[in-house]
Amino acid sequence: MKKLINDPKNVVIEAVAGFEAAHGDIVRVSHDPIFIARSDAPVHGKVGIVSGGGSGHEPLHGGFVGYGMLDAAVPGAVFTSPTPDPILAATQVVDGGAGVLHLVKNYTGDVLNFETAADLASAEGIEVRAVIINDDVAVKDSLYTAGRRGVAGTVLVEKITGAAAERGDDLAAVVAVAEKVNSRVRTMGVALTPCVVPHAGEPSFVLADDEIEIGIGIHGEPGRERIKLEPADAIVDRLLAPILDDLPFVAGDAVLLFVNGMGGTPQVELYIVFRRAAEVLAEKGITVTRSLVGNYTTSLEMAGTSISVLKLDEELTSLWDAPVQTAALRWGR
Amino acid sequence: MKKLINDPKNVVIEAVAGFEAAHGDIVRVSHDPIFIARSDAPVHGKVGIVSGGGSGHEPLHGGFVGYGMLDAAVPGAVFTSPTPDPILAATQVVDGGAGVLHLVKNYTGDVLNFETAADLASAEGIEVRAVIINDDVAVKDSLYTAGRRGVAGTVLVEKITGAAAERGDDLAAVVAVAEKVNSRVRTMGVALTPCVVPHAGEPSFVLADDEIEIGIGIHGEPGRERIKLEPADAIVDRLLAPILDDLPFVAGDAVLLFVNGMGGTPQVELYIVFRRAAEVLAEKGITVTRSLVGNYTTSLEMAGTSISVLKLDEELTSLWDAPVQTAALRWGR
Repeated sequence: MKKLINDPKNVVIEAVAGFEAAHGDIVRVSHDPIFIARSDAPVHGKVGIVSGGGSGHEPLHGGFVGYGMLDAAVPGAVFTSPTPDPILAATQVVDGGAGVLHLVKNYTGDVLNFETAADLASAEGIEVRAVIINDDVAVKDSLYTAGRRGVAGTVLVEKITGAAAERGDDLAAVVAVAEKVNSRVRTMGVALTPCVVPHAGEPSFVLADDEIEIGIGIHGEPGRERIKLEPADAIVDRLLAPILDDLPFVAGDAVLLFVNGMGGTPQVELYIVFRRAAEVLAEKGITVTRSLVGNYTTSLEMAGTSISVLKLDEELTSLWDAPVQTAALRWGR
Repeated sequence: MKKLINDPKNVVIEAVAGFEAAHGDIVRVSHDPIFIARSDAPVHGKVGIVSGGGSGHEPLHGGFVGYGMLDAAVPGAVFTSPTPDPILAATQVVDGGAGVLHLVKNYTGDVLNFETAADLASAEGIEVRAVIINDDVAVKDSLYTAGRRGVAGTVLVEKITGAAAERGDDLAAVVAVAEKVNSRVRTMGVALTPCVVPHAGEPSFVLADDEIEIGIGIHGEPGRERIKLEPADAIVDRLLAPILDDLPFVAGDAVLLFVNGMGGTPQVELYIVFRRAAEVLAEKGITVTRSLVGNYTTSLEMAGTSISVLKLDEELTSLWDAPVQTAALRWGR
């Protein structure tokens, strides 16, 4: 295992310190307990938005802290939920008097720990609501999950919900936007190679030289099937079909197409994937009106990609286009 | 070799098509010959800026086409210079009457082909100047290069020079800014793993399970030495020392610190690198006033990083902060 680290135990501590050194103009960092908050938190009168989860998916979530998106992000150990303590502390710090929304990817540990933190915050008089994100169509009830997993669609939920909070929506309205985005986004991924969790030191799973895993989870959890490597276009078709069938997306829909890199896939490959996905959508009469391509929800150095499709309407489009200023996502369509 | 591609011959063609599909709001793409231009090119009265080089380093250069940065980018085959034809065509398209600047990484093929294109453009009455970027302190006269190589510092040259052109500087002034940035930026990289060029199908070099290459080139060219893997902090110290000695950077300097991912390195590792680099600079009395962390000049899926340090002054800082709107780099400090 070759990694640019000092000690597997200190990966998150040191990475967060580096994040603070690089982005101190827009965030401030609490080191004990560990969380990242907007430098101007709390924003009085604005709903605070907190997300978090295991580390190793960067820029999710810390890279999305800033104006127009998250008020705080709580990183756990690599691929491990944060405990309630830092979630509670982050919730307190971002509470501007209008309540706090927890955006939680659907994994058993995350859901439980965010719930506990919400109970503790409520006991202190902070109004907390949670929206569980579960956009992955690949499997139901996987390792670590009851129900569907929350994966790359989380980025879209965080961006659009953050814009709703920034424009001044109250807590109920912000919750409604988050639920609306989650209800309209579907995702499926593929892995070409596994990743190595630093403290484990070994690949989380094994794929033969000619094998890929269709429907992979972002922690390397099993997907739908393991098949021989195929041309990119055939792989895209395998990922898109269940996504489109699920909502379902239909002719006339306007969508945001998001091709996410898992960490170790070159950008030229992500654009080859985007090209085919856009082609398939066009053939079906579905119009791509917004797009996002890049490494936004990663699994350490895993090679692979996921495709997310979000059904837009005027409100979601305008919230997507709203200004955002974070380390990883900045203003622009 | 597992890659999300269809046919090694079509990688660049299909990736560029995907880029067009994703970013058609800010760029337009010529498919024969292949280049990417700002959607509003030519901007009348503005100096046009063209860069380019072998593909496989994305987002460099296509991801930097747009308002405030490049007017056009010319991608060659993977790790292969574009021929003069597309460079000439891009030069013609972005010529707004104020002349065109070619920003060229110092590789023999690139320098020659950009020169030929410049001669042809000049013969048509377009005033063309070139600035050769050679920020890599690792080696002199390497494979493919007479003199030092142009590597990740290119991103900083393109951003700052693009801002100078956007504010209305004339060709001589824009050239002066590009030369100033190039003269004040130094870079050195390290590889943990090689990358695989699609049409080659095999790793460009071999590293043992416990070996790293200090001073690696962005095409996998040899660096200074091959050593056993060390803790991240020790590796950072090895990269920074020759960078700081070279300019030299001294106490009291204000700098932009840029930690670049080679493609296959997780973001947590890049931030661990940033943390140590910022620490070393602070110890030496050098102040990091601007920063950039991420995959901006990649070598396909290579694992590794490079560190660039740019000595800032008021002018360069203000040009760095100027608005930019491209696929890969957007407004924000």
